[in-house]
Amino acid sequence: MLILLKPDVTPEQQDAVEKHIRSLGYVPHVMPGATRTAVGITGNKGALDPEPFRMMPGVADAIPVSQPFKLVSREVKPEDTLVSVGDLTIGGNELIVAAGPCSVETREQIVATAESVRAQGARMLRGGAFKPRTSPYDFQGLKADGLKLLGEARAVTGLPVVTEVKDVESLAMVAEGAEMLQIGARNMQNFSLLEAVGELRRPVLLKRGMSASLKELLMAAEYIVARGNRQVVLCERGIRTFETMTRNTFDINAIPMLKQLSHLPVFADPSHGVGVRHGIAAVARAAVAAGADGLLIEVHPDPARALSDGAQSLTFAEFKELMSGVRAVAAAIGRSIAAPVG
Amino acid sequence: MLILLKPDVTPEQQDAVEKHIRSLGYVPHVMPGATRTAVGITGNKGALDPEPFRMMPGVADAIPVSQPFKLVSREVKPEDTLVSVGDLTIGGNELIVAAGPCSVETREQIVATAESVRAQGARMLRGGAFKPRTSPYDFQGLKADGLKLLGEARAVTGLPVVTEVKDVESLAMVAEGAEMLQIGARNMQNFSLLEAVGELRRPVLLKRGMSASLKELLMAAEYIVARGNRQVVLCERGIRTFETMTRNTFDINAIPMLKQLSHLPVFADPSHGVGVRHGIAAVARAAVAAGADGLLIEVHPDPARALSDGAQSLTFAEFKELMSGVRAVAAAIGRSIAAPVG
Amino acid sequence: MLILLKPDVTPEQQDAVEKHIRSLGYVPHVMPGATRTAVGITGNKGALDPEPFRMMPGVADAIPVSQPFKLVSREVKPEDTLVSVGDLTIGGNELIVAAGPCSVETREQIVATAESVRAQGARMLRGGAFKPRTSPYDFQGLKADGLKLLGEARAVTGLPVVTEVKDVESLAMVAEGAEMLQIGARNMQNFSLLEAVGELRRPVLLKRGMSASLKELLMAAEYIVARGNRQVVLCERGIRTFETMTRNTFDINAIPMLKQLSHLPVFADPSHGVGVRHGIAAVARAAVAAGADGLLIEVHPDPARALSDGAQSLTFAEFKELMSGVRAVAAAIGRSIAAPVG
Amino acid sequence: MLILLKPDVTPEQQDAVEKHIRSLGYVPHVMPGATRTAVGITGNKGALDPEPFRMMPGVADAIPVSQPFKLVSREVKPEDTLVSVGDLTIGGNELIVAAGPCSVETREQIVATAESVRAQGARMLRGGAFKPRTSPYDFQGLKADGLKLLGEARAVTGLPVVTEVKDVESLAMVAEGAEMLQIGARNMQNFSLLEAVGELRRPVLLKRGMSASLKELLMAAEYIVARGNRQVVLCERGIRTFETMTRNTFDINAIPMLKQLSHLPVFADPSHGVGVRHGIAAVARAAVAAGADGLLIEVHPDPARALSDGAQSLTFAEFKELMSGVRAVAAAIGRSIAAPVG
Repeated sequence: MLILLKPDVTPEQQDAVEKHIRSLGYVPHVMPGATRTAVGITGNKGALDPEPFRMMPGVADAIPVSQPFKLVSREVKPEDTLVSVGDLTIGGNELIVAAGPCSVETREQIVATAESVRAQGARMLRGGAFKPRTSPYDFQGLKADGLKLLGEARAVTGLPVVTEVKDVESLAMVAEGAEMLQIGARNMQNFSLLEAVGELRRPVLLKRGMSASLKELLMAAEYIVARGNRQVVLCERGIRTFETMTRNTFDINAIPMLKQLSHLPVFADPSHGVGVRHGIAAVARAAVAAGADGLLIEVHPDPARALSDGAQSLTFAEFKELMSGVRAVAAAIGRSIAAPVG
Repeated sequence: MLILLKPDVTPEQQDAVEKHIRSLGYVPHVMPGATRTAVGITGNKGALDPEPFRMMPGVADAIPVSQPFKLVSREVKPEDTLVSVGDLTIGGNELIVAAGPCSVETREQIVATAESVRAQGARMLRGGAFKPRTSPYDFQGLKADGLKLLGEARAVTGLPVVTEVKDVESLAMVAEGAEMLQIGARNMQNFSLLEAVGELRRPVLLKRGMSASLKELLMAAEYIVARGNRQVVLCERGIRTFETMTRNTFDINAIPMLKQLSHLPVFADPSHGVGVRHGIAAVARAAVAAGADGLLIEVHPDPARALSDGAQSLTFAEFKELMSGVRAVAAAIGRSIAAPVG
Repeated sequence: MLILLKPDVTPEQQDAVEKHIRSLGYVPHVMPGATRTAVGITGNKGALDPEPFRMMPGVADAIPVSQPFKLVSREVKPEDTLVSVGDLTIGGNELIVAAGPCSVETREQIVATAESVRAQGARMLRGGAFKPRTSPYDFQGLKADGLKLLGEARAVTGLPVVTEVKDVESLAMVAEGAEMLQIGARNMQNFSLLEAVGELRRPVLLKRGMSASLKELLMAAEYIVARGNRQVVLCERGIRTFETMTRNTFDINAIPMLKQLSHLPVFADPSHGVGVRHGIAAVARAAVAAGADGLLIEVHPDPARALSDGAQSLTFAEFKELMSGVRAVAAAIGRSIAAPVG
Repeated sequence: MLILLKPDVTPEQQDAVEKHIRSLGYVPHVMPGATRTAVGITGNKGALDPEPFRMMPGVADAIPVSQPFKLVSREVKPEDTLVSVGDLTIGGNELIVAAGPCSVETREQIVATAESVRAQGARMLRGGAFKPRTSPYDFQGLKADGLKLLGEARAVTGLPVVTEVKDVESLAMVAEGAEMLQIGARNMQNFSLLEAVGELRRPVLLKRGMSASLKELLMAAEYIVARGNRQVVLCERGIRTFETMTRNTFDINAIPMLKQLSHLPVFADPSHGVGVRHGIAAVARAAVAAGADGLLIEVHPDPARALSDGAQSLTFAEFKELMSGVRAVAAAIGRSIAAPVG
């Protein structure tokens, strides 16, 4: 159920609505909008009767919500959500490209990469400090040292940092070292972690699980938003199918479907979505053409020697070419990507 | 194995190469190119020794082919294949859009659709006369009458026709009534049908099976080309995955992968690839951005009353909007789509 | 809609019912049963009104059918269908094992295999004469010669033969040479072939397509039965999933689901369902425990030299051990498998 | 690499081997066996040279391990691992059935269920106290109260308890309240949780992720064993495929494949693997026939009113029938399941 308040609602009237919701045992979620405020209701089993709400002073309407995800649905909030990361805005006319290595390896590697991708128009730096790996014997990231090196790369380039948070234990440390928290595909249904980032007021990049349905992705986002953190960006990164020639199957359909169902911005990660170097630029262009609000691209100074994901990391020259292609496509659909710098 | 002949090879020398191949029990496939002729060899088990071929007069080189598909691979023929359909060329700089209803229903329906899509820049008319349907009780197409109506629509609009051929029995009839033969997803591994169209010299649109790997799609094309019909266009139309919100998952990765592996043109069918009206235009733009050589789009004067695939058929107005979007994206990557007519 | 006739219905009354159905433009399917006759109706769009039928003389009841498959559903025919292959009955208390090589290769190979599997309790001989292969360059079977060799193996052992029919062109030849026609996984939705075998009165083993849903499998069977051939056995043979350690994923759930939804017998093909020799006996036992009515097992005198499917073919000794295991499990659930002979 | 020590190795010799491994920067894992002790080595990149180890006193042999999973592979430990849960042994000749409700709801519910399943031969009680749910608005379990009620049911029946642990935060509490810790499918790659249970010395039931490959399942088990907790039971619970008639596709192939690749016991969860009540008993029998070491079955006094998973929960009567069927199949393959009590 969604309660739409009148533009001239008084604080007392709004308070009465919230109190009434709590008195029924449910949870009110106040959502201020450009022209009016709405209040979402969650916690109910089954449908609520809208009539008693409609009769309350200050209430314009009460609308049943048909989707199982509530707060993240367009039914509840028709206008696009804008997510702020430092000075950047995700979800507006400008597409944001976040680029960088799979793993932070050395100061030289991360700073050189940050400088190079910034020069090509990337607006954010990505890089893994805590790496969930299939094998316990594989490189698990530099952890605290990795966060420190990301901070140095930010200091040099001014790029805000997005990095993965792997568990509740390291959340405080990662939240201190990064402007945006990434929830990885394997943790998309780690509900304890979702609840913990939901308690923060820091933007979250939520990657789709490798076999998660779109509905499950939206329900995972709902876990975060239901705790009060509305700064969530969804990210399509390829799903697991029978095809073995590519690492994953990038679900291009997901982009228009998510944009229709939800007001949250949608990023695309063609590096994981294809998983073989050849093809990443093409799928990046495709994601932009389909309406993605941003891209996540793996770039490494020397992919052949990368400690992880070398096969899908672009060289600096390949990234430059990718940026040129996506910039042209963005312009063709009336959007923009930052021009090369300097 | 691929034998590259010298530019100044004599007919006698070429003949000797072919004879030698046949004398070993294999099959030679002569492939004339812009600057020189190549001869592919098929039928061998295991690797052939290139040395004896390299020593023959008129032979420039003999190159082992590593892929299980031979004649359709870029190893054997690096330059793009151009497929001619009437006056059109598929695989060149211009992208070709084929549009029309899922099923031919009435003269009025097919002629009105043909005129409308032609006016928006479609260069081919699609429409099903023989419809393979999951249920024996569903509408199976108008069959011979449908072919006749397609011919009338062609007469009115000048658009060449692509339509599905369902079995060997009806092949001659369909080949007479259509400029291009479509092999549907369910028949991608109907090898008897592939062999039969391989014996014709008529262009073929080969759709990927709904759970076919890219390698299997290329092997299916190899069946056709190995019989001598080189006019094959591959078509990505979505694969079957766990996601249920869309009818299929359009495999955008397939486009750059197929273009890299094969010299054949690649079409995209976003109508089946998404299967819900919302999202088709976005995925059509994506396919163009990823490098597709053409599009197959379902359009119907009144989708709500279509006898098949209504949920994924566009209205005339929606098709007009789609064309405007894909034209802009094509231009952004240096290609073109025909402008609206009249 | 299903019309149940009274036990004492007269021929004239039954005739009137059939005529009435035809007069409405639908097709009656008379299904004689042990205690009474039923008449299925197909060809209608949407639900029919049962009342007018219920009022006809000789009619006991008229029952709407909720499933999209009609004639093959248990709603229409609650009792199990028994399929006769020569002297054998499939679908009764005894489980039938059909065994033999993937491809017929030589007289010695097929006769030796037939004798060996017969001695271990196999009741049918399987072997491919027409082989649909992913590559046009792979061994495609001995064709007519293969059928002839199967006939010789039958003459020696008395085992009836099941072999694949690949296309309508070769159907008459295969139908002459085999007691049971197998429709392979790649042809499960080759509707022209389904219709052609539907016109025959020869038992059919219909294998599930590698990405066909259970509903689609039942609809494919409906194509055959709707043409009048009710002697259909369904066969689960593994589906395509993301798992790569096995060739396919044997869908054990399919067995109880198909037995519940349909009255047709259900076979299991663990050779293709697992695809690696280790594991085939275990999954064969599992299929029997889950309620399969028979097994299809690939056996070869020398799997390492088989022209196809060597990795999943059992030796004679391995087949003997498999039979011992499945016989014990069949007995544990109150069914039987033929004892070793001689 | 695996170092096999001689039967008469001295403690000093063994100590020297371990020290040498550590001096190379790797980790030794001492595995005492019935007749001799082995020492696994992990932490190396690339292959180690076995020769220096073979020349050390007390060393019988040094064997390279080809699989990416080391400690859980049969290469490293050919004999079956036996896991002790209270007085029970999992992995021996007797199959262990753990049964109970999806969620603990009330004292009456859990005690009645425990008594009923114990009477039918179940040897363990399952029941969820912490429930990971797709929606943040669904019932999330009774948490600490649920653990307390499980303790009461154990006190009444003597059945040891297996229950899910959802996160590191609640691990200590769950470990105190349950004899065996279950890692759910969604947490199979929650590596922080795997490491945390790896530090405990409490048996773990590790469920396969819904789209995890068998290799990934074994790597997840390796995370636990590498930390020193060798008491791990693997559990097949169905994978996500395109089939929608069942909740998941139970991967019966997984049972023989896992038993071949690993020495760890393998459980089957047909309740989730099928997900519709009809079919669970058939797939339970199949799992036993295929070689499973135990079953996990959802049972509820009144499935229609269950707070979760009602559609796949059996009534007491249905469970009784299931037990009768699996007991007969176990006997047919030379194993046993406890007889009904009292």
